[in-house]
Amino acid sequence: MSESGGADSLKRARFAHVPTIFGLPDGVRDDTDVALIGVPFDGGVTHRPGARHGPEAIRAASKLIRRVHHRSRIAPFEVLRCADAGDVPIEHWFDLSAAHGDIERFYGSLPHGTIPLSLGGDHSITIPILRALGRERPVAVVHVDAHCDTSGEYGGSLFHHGAPFRIAAQEGLIVPELTFQLGIRGSLANAEQWSYSYESGMTVVTIEDLYERGIAAVGQSVAAALGDTPVYVSFDVDAVDPVYAPGTGTPEIGGLTSLDALILIRSLAGANCIGADIVEVSPPFDLGGHTSLLAATLAFEILCVIAARERRL
Amino acid sequence: MSESGGADSLKRARFAHVPTIFGLPDGVRDDTDVALIGVPFDGGVTHRPGARHGPEAIRAASKLIRRVHHRSRIAPFEVLRCADAGDVPIEHWFDLSAAHGDIERFYGSLPHGTIPLSLGGDHSITIPILRALGRERPVAVVHVDAHCDTSGEYGGSLFHHGAPFRIAAQEGLIVPELTFQLGIRGSLANAEQWSYSYESGMTVVTIEDLYERGIAAVGQSVAAALGDTPVYVSFDVDAVDPVYAPGTGTPEIGGLTSLDALILIRSLAGANCIGADIVEVSPPFDLGGHTSLLAATLAFEILCVIAARERRL
Amino acid sequence: MSESGGADSLKRARFAHVPTIFGLPDGVRDDTDVALIGVPFDGGVTHRPGARHGPEAIRAASKLIRRVHHRSRIAPFEVLRCADAGDVPIEHWFDLSAAHGDIERFYGSLPHGTIPLSLGGDHSITIPILRALGRERPVAVVHVDAHCDTSGEYGGSLFHHGAPFRIAAQEGLIVPELTFQLGIRGSLANAEQWSYSYESGMTVVTIEDLYERGIAAVGQSVAAALGDTPVYVSFDVDAVDPVYAPGTGTPEIGGLTSLDALILIRSLAGANCIGADIVEVSPPFDLGGHTSLLAATLAFEILCVIAARERRL
Amino acid sequence: MSESGGADSLKRARFAHVPTIFGLPDGVRDDTDVALIGVPFDGGVTHRPGARHGPEAIRAASKLIRRVHHRSRIAPFEVLRCADAGDVPIEHWFDLSAAHGDIERFYGSLPHGTIPLSLGGDHSITIPILRALGRERPVAVVHVDAHCDTSGEYGGSLFHHGAPFRIAAQEGLIVPELTFQLGIRGSLANAEQWSYSYESGMTVVTIEDLYERGIAAVGQSVAAALGDTPVYVSFDVDAVDPVYAPGTGTPEIGGLTSLDALILIRSLAGANCIGADIVEVSPPFDLGGHTSLLAATLAFEILCVIAARERRL
Amino acid sequence: MSESGGADSLKRARFAHVPTIFGLPDGVRDDTDVALIGVPFDGGVTHRPGARHGPEAIRAASKLIRRVHHRSRIAPFEVLRCADAGDVPIEHWFDLSAAHGDIERFYGSLPHGTIPLSLGGDHSITIPILRALGRERPVAVVHVDAHCDTSGEYGGSLFHHGAPFRIAAQEGLIVPELTFQLGIRGSLANAEQWSYSYESGMTVVTIEDLYERGIAAVGQSVAAALGDTPVYVSFDVDAVDPVYAPGTGTPEIGGLTSLDALILIRSLAGANCIGADIVEVSPPFDLGGHTSLLAATLAFEILCVIAARERRL
Amino acid sequence: MSESGGADSLKRARFAHVPTIFGLPDGVRDDTDVALIGVPFDGGVTHRPGARHGPEAIRAASKLIRRVHHRSRIAPFEVLRCADAGDVPIEHWFDLSAAHGDIERFYGSLPHGTIPLSLGGDHSITIPILRALGRERPVAVVHVDAHCDTSGEYGGSLFHHGAPFRIAAQEGLIVPELTFQLGIRGSLANAEQWSYSYESGMTVVTIEDLYERGIAAVGQSVAAALGDTPVYVSFDVDAVDPVYAPGTGTPEIGGLTSLDALILIRSLAGANCIGADIVEVSPPFDLGGHTSLLAATLAFEILCVIAARERRL
Repeated sequence: MSESGGADSLKRARFAHVPTIFGLPDGVRDDTDVALIGVPFDGGVTHRPGARHGPEAIRAASKLIRRVHHRSRIAPFEVLRCADAGDVPIEHWFDLSAAHGDIERFYGSLPHGTIPLSLGGDHSITIPILRALGRERPVAVVHVDAHCDTSGEYGGSLFHHGAPFRIAAQEGLIVPELTFQLGIRGSLANAEQWSYSYESGMTVVTIEDLYERGIAAVGQSVAAALGDTPVYVSFDVDAVDPVYAPGTGTPEIGGLTSLDALILIRSLAGANCIGADIVEVSPPFDLGGHTSLLAATLAFEILCVIAARERRL
Repeated sequence: MSESGGADSLKRARFAHVPTIFGLPDGVRDDTDVALIGVPFDGGVTHRPGARHGPEAIRAASKLIRRVHHRSRIAPFEVLRCADAGDVPIEHWFDLSAAHGDIERFYGSLPHGTIPLSLGGDHSITIPILRALGRERPVAVVHVDAHCDTSGEYGGSLFHHGAPFRIAAQEGLIVPELTFQLGIRGSLANAEQWSYSYESGMTVVTIEDLYERGIAAVGQSVAAALGDTPVYVSFDVDAVDPVYAPGTGTPEIGGLTSLDALILIRSLAGANCIGADIVEVSPPFDLGGHTSLLAATLAFEILCVIAARERRL
Repeated sequence: MSESGGADSLKRARFAHVPTIFGLPDGVRDDTDVALIGVPFDGGVTHRPGARHGPEAIRAASKLIRRVHHRSRIAPFEVLRCADAGDVPIEHWFDLSAAHGDIERFYGSLPHGTIPLSLGGDHSITIPILRALGRERPVAVVHVDAHCDTSGEYGGSLFHHGAPFRIAAQEGLIVPELTFQLGIRGSLANAEQWSYSYESGMTVVTIEDLYERGIAAVGQSVAAALGDTPVYVSFDVDAVDPVYAPGTGTPEIGGLTSLDALILIRSLAGANCIGADIVEVSPPFDLGGHTSLLAATLAFEILCVIAARERRL
Repeated sequence: MSESGGADSLKRARFAHVPTIFGLPDGVRDDTDVALIGVPFDGGVTHRPGARHGPEAIRAASKLIRRVHHRSRIAPFEVLRCADAGDVPIEHWFDLSAAHGDIERFYGSLPHGTIPLSLGGDHSITIPILRALGRERPVAVVHVDAHCDTSGEYGGSLFHHGAPFRIAAQEGLIVPELTFQLGIRGSLANAEQWSYSYESGMTVVTIEDLYERGIAAVGQSVAAALGDTPVYVSFDVDAVDPVYAPGTGTPEIGGLTSLDALILIRSLAGANCIGADIVEVSPPFDLGGHTSLLAATLAFEILCVIAARERRL
Repeated sequence: MSESGGADSLKRARFAHVPTIFGLPDGVRDDTDVALIGVPFDGGVTHRPGARHGPEAIRAASKLIRRVHHRSRIAPFEVLRCADAGDVPIEHWFDLSAAHGDIERFYGSLPHGTIPLSLGGDHSITIPILRALGRERPVAVVHVDAHCDTSGEYGGSLFHHGAPFRIAAQEGLIVPELTFQLGIRGSLANAEQWSYSYESGMTVVTIEDLYERGIAAVGQSVAAALGDTPVYVSFDVDAVDPVYAPGTGTPEIGGLTSLDALILIRSLAGANCIGADIVEVSPPFDLGGHTSLLAATLAFEILCVIAARERRL
Repeated sequence: MSESGGADSLKRARFAHVPTIFGLPDGVRDDTDVALIGVPFDGGVTHRPGARHGPEAIRAASKLIRRVHHRSRIAPFEVLRCADAGDVPIEHWFDLSAAHGDIERFYGSLPHGTIPLSLGGDHSITIPILRALGRERPVAVVHVDAHCDTSGEYGGSLFHHGAPFRIAAQEGLIVPELTFQLGIRGSLANAEQWSYSYESGMTVVTIEDLYERGIAAVGQSVAAALGDTPVYVSFDVDAVDPVYAPGTGTPEIGGLTSLDALILIRSLAGANCIGADIVEVSPPFDLGGHTSLLAATLAFEILCVIAARERRL
């Protein structure tokens, strides 16, 4: 069991030196259950950049997170061996495809069975991560976002941050029928922008649908549909309203509150999560640091989802 | 049909040069359905100024708005001929009455049948706009605001931003019995501050009433009461909570969320909107630019309300 | 009756000189009903400091508050003799216990029957205030906060801002069975962090419980349980979400909205409030000044709660 | 002698309640030597507003100023009877000429011999102040600014903030040949924009001239030219570089540093200053509050200039 | 002659709609003397991105620039036919080399004799611009920067923003012996980082050298060395201290003041400038907008340098 | 020799994970030449707190510092064995004297001969550091600051951040005749506030003196006076103008520029520095992070001063 994970806010001042996320040990071992991985890359954005600075900001914000969940009383660092794997060593910063290759290689080198919980970085990083994770069998996806991210070519490339789930589906890495896109909203460039989602069989739940049906109810029905299927959770912080998550590149008015975002993740408890990411945190736009703190809190909630299953098994 | 309205975010980088709101053609023609008009005037405010910078900020923020509504699938720029009419050429900046005369003249010169969608500016601009629009027959009003804006003299003038609907009612430009004031809240200077609203027959719905009855339900009942009556929609961004809309001059704690503001406007679909304004956006206070982006999104929602009727007719 | 309390926003520009909170008379008299007191002390914080600047910021923000409540039509400055007592004259800034002594002495010197409404300052100030107020008989407590604040020793002291209600209970100043802790959330340092609350008989209501049961319903049931028992209201602004109240030292994602915070206080109308505080406003982190404005608005709501009882008696 | 002027930073925490500038007594008496006066008016600006909030921000910043000048060892509050006269009670907020009338009336009512040191407000306020001060005989002027402010009509008025010294000269309130405009820079609207300055005999010193000749040398030569002539000092904070004074309405790149601004004022020691103003502080743009703190420090330096003469007499 | 260039701040409110830089006509004609060109690209940065937003921010800030230089009385818009050419239409956003190809093509299509004055964008854009401009004969360079930008491969590419002048020299586009690098400072990654500059014959002037020799003196000696040689001026805003130019990606403590930057450019008057750029303005980091305003002011100074020669010829 | 010190900005993205200052090895060894030590304590401030967050902010900013000085070509990490010693483990946060004891103990435990370079923290930390360093023999001091910090009791204590050099002199830890206080300015609470400095024989150089005599000239004369005497360098960032160093607690208008601060430190090259600190960096007020970056750059300059001597020996 991890001995040092989580801030012991009763013993140590939280403004003192914290080099890793949640104060976890630095470096993955063969028996690491969950590896927290920074992916400081934003070469795939179509509008405001800055997500390359996401991992450092989320690590810094994580010092405010402690050890035990206030509702479930889950203590993830006692249940899971967690480690901070550092940042992916990207070699090719100026070439989107080559950078994706660098990322895929890193994830391919993780110990078998280690669950990667990634801190982006823009949403294009989900492509190489899924190439590493979905290589053996396609996985289900819970995708929380303002946008479906199943667009086509833009700016001379298919692999930008508005397209990861189209690429992943086309490459057979994910199961469209078990892909749930939650929180979708915002004007469309044209009526076909997200048609790939609908036509491939993904379930698209708009923000209005979410609130009409109830956040927790939607989350629980997704969890029920998933059962034991291995599922990847991808959380784009622009799913959350730009007031709660100003630090992002493509803000859309009218999103989730932070509390609802936490409840949505929490409602997945019991799902067989084999990987997750929190992406599109762009610190240059993060007034007050709320987005980084939200991302760190979401990472903690995801760890509790994973730990809930461990405990149950 | 407008060919260039709305950002084609799939073809053009949104951070590149956008000279007009939504990238619309510059200048009104005789067959323009909707004219978007900047009114860079804040000479009527009683507290924090800055709304004169509203139009430029809303135009700049509008580059994030695309073309098709994600729920209704309305594409307003395909349904309506829209244009950016530029900013009202105000000649008398230092004299409230004379500036109102400049504004009224501009609106009086618009082609018959062109619907003005105005970007303020402070709420006093609604007085000259209604003088131009309500000249032939009084109109109904949907007024979303934290304040009733039916106050009396202040600082030596009757025509400041806290009084437009009293002036308009007294001048016979609006129908009090068909004036709906939604989102009202905040402490009063004295028990009589908004008594004109009650005594003239306006319907005052506090923020608490709105949430108790349901945002969409209230909006739909207003739309039902309006029927085909020509209606002016006036949206003061301080109706929205100051956390969602910090860029305003007279903030009141405890307002609408952005999502609820969008839903409220959306619930008016089908109303016979003959003009609208979004006022009190004060960029110097707009941390993160959320207020400007909200205002641009509200403008898009209002265009969809107008387009919904066009489509229905 | 206080003649000058509340801003007469119809007669005086609110950006002109306001030296006291709500423009109240400066200095407490023997017949003062409510004394507003600044406690510019943050020597008890465990993370981000800055709450020493709270009183000056809340006073400055209070110029936006007027005189009559928009729902209840209560005019607290007509019902109650209110005064700004200034800031507690702290003599020992660098010694937590001695500073608490300075504070206790000040509250002990208030006229009998004057209700103190305090503007913090960090939450440790509630210890000396309760020592002054609960001296004769233990009082009930309504405590709105993200944290239970019943922790043990930290950093060499028992009397920091994470422990006031444990200290107060242990010193017999409050009645645990009539202590209601509302809005609790956030990860815990260990499973025992708040066990004192549970074991001493306090009622702990998490943020999720609050929303599931309904804000107003919880508030009303608390008021019913209190009856006429003298009660102290302690509002830590970190109960509110950090997006609504960024100016605080220990932010927790996922809290109350401002509107819900107002409604929660309002639902206590009729309670026998013998003192109250609003603490942990830290202006250095208060982007846009929303936290100070919220605190001033909460102070107005608390005055209305007190006035409601006066009126009823 | 003033007993309470200046913060005794050794006895009182500066973040505790300070209701007046420099903690001075509130209200002018017949024997007041210097009255500090807020003029919360920005109805004369041509670009960014906000200077109406200047007085409150400068008062708040003044808590950082203590009592004795570190170079000259002058203690102005011991030499001069100073008072905070509050803010000018403006009655006509929406009419530039009428507001100027309100201001002139207030200055006309000051005790004979009391020197007004005004905190603006925009530069148009210098017109009514000079009307009150220069009524008996025209005065000399030291005018520190980026702009000559001798422009003609704009926006339908002659009396805006870009014209006070033209108006004052034309009304015979100032002596052009003893008017020194220091720090002038920035592009001109046309070659004639400041020709009135040159043609009326004013001395225009550009920022480049100031640095080539030396700040103190220029100041001393101005002081020498003035001798005992009564002189009005008008300091527009946009004379200072926008990096040092971001809180202003018409920023011009390339101005004075704060230190040079202080040295410039200081070099006037011995001048017969019969009035002064610090104008165009616009808090909504004042990142970090540096402009307000600079303005408070400049006010202290001006008090030392006045006290230096008192001491010498 | 351009009739509409420069803001007529005496006739038109500067906060009203300004679609082009300096209000210039939109679009280049065959007889355009100077084309102002936005290059919204930051795909070549090695640290903080955001310079893609530079052109829109500089255009917006340019509304504060008027028409006549306050020292030289040059009115560049009367001397030169200027136009806003809009933003370079980049087709390949995610491929550094291909994007450079898009940029080179655009510059190659400009009318012969039109001088491009470019608004970046990161410093890598100078590579394709020089490929277009230096194609016929190598040009001299005045390069103002904190860094020599003659580094080698980084992140898998030779063509990033730390290398343009090495690339340009190696491709024979510039004359190293007539390349002047001014303002150099900041720690080096290793002793060889800038050795290419020294070995190829460029003149490197550190910030300390600049101040010891005098800003204007250095500029004049450079101008003298250049004589009539065609020269390209490249101004990286990080040459200026990060306090004056916070909006940039690789800040170095201890740079030029804004005034000195203006004086440095101004001292080049008479040089045969055949092109210029102002790069590395990154608005997401531009607190207060000072960097954008500085860039617009620098663009005006460069226009005056060009106009000075026109006038002299 | 340290192998990993300094960012190799040519090999590694600077926004990727940097856990220690300058990327140095974590932990002091017996042969460590210089230990960089965080002291996250601000319990001694008299005005704005926040310096407890200084070490984490300076560490984060240090990623922008590379390896070789651009003027002297000194590569400190090649000359000196440097390490990040982490933050001082303070046990008694709420008791100024006890916290000073914790700090003194930590410094007392450093290997003999290891030079501590401390990152504060408020200026009171210099008291326990000097108690550890000056224990054997009193040391000379170069003290750069806006304030002399030789004040007496305040707020019930002698040991606050306005008094360290009086305490140190009284305890015989420093040599007053070899104590140089540089950059002094700002109003005084009373004429005696800094009299201890003058009377004990310290050399006080005001900011005006510094500029009149020349920054480098003063520095060199100090270095000459010191000769080989062991000297402690204490740099309070409020010596620098608040525009360059906004992130501090007691700002004084009119200070050093960043460049001059660097030159001042640099001019001490050759001094026998046996310890140094950079204090009063308060991140909550550090708009744009300039203060933290300045502090990291100053730390690099101090390392070069130490390395210069090592190289010379």
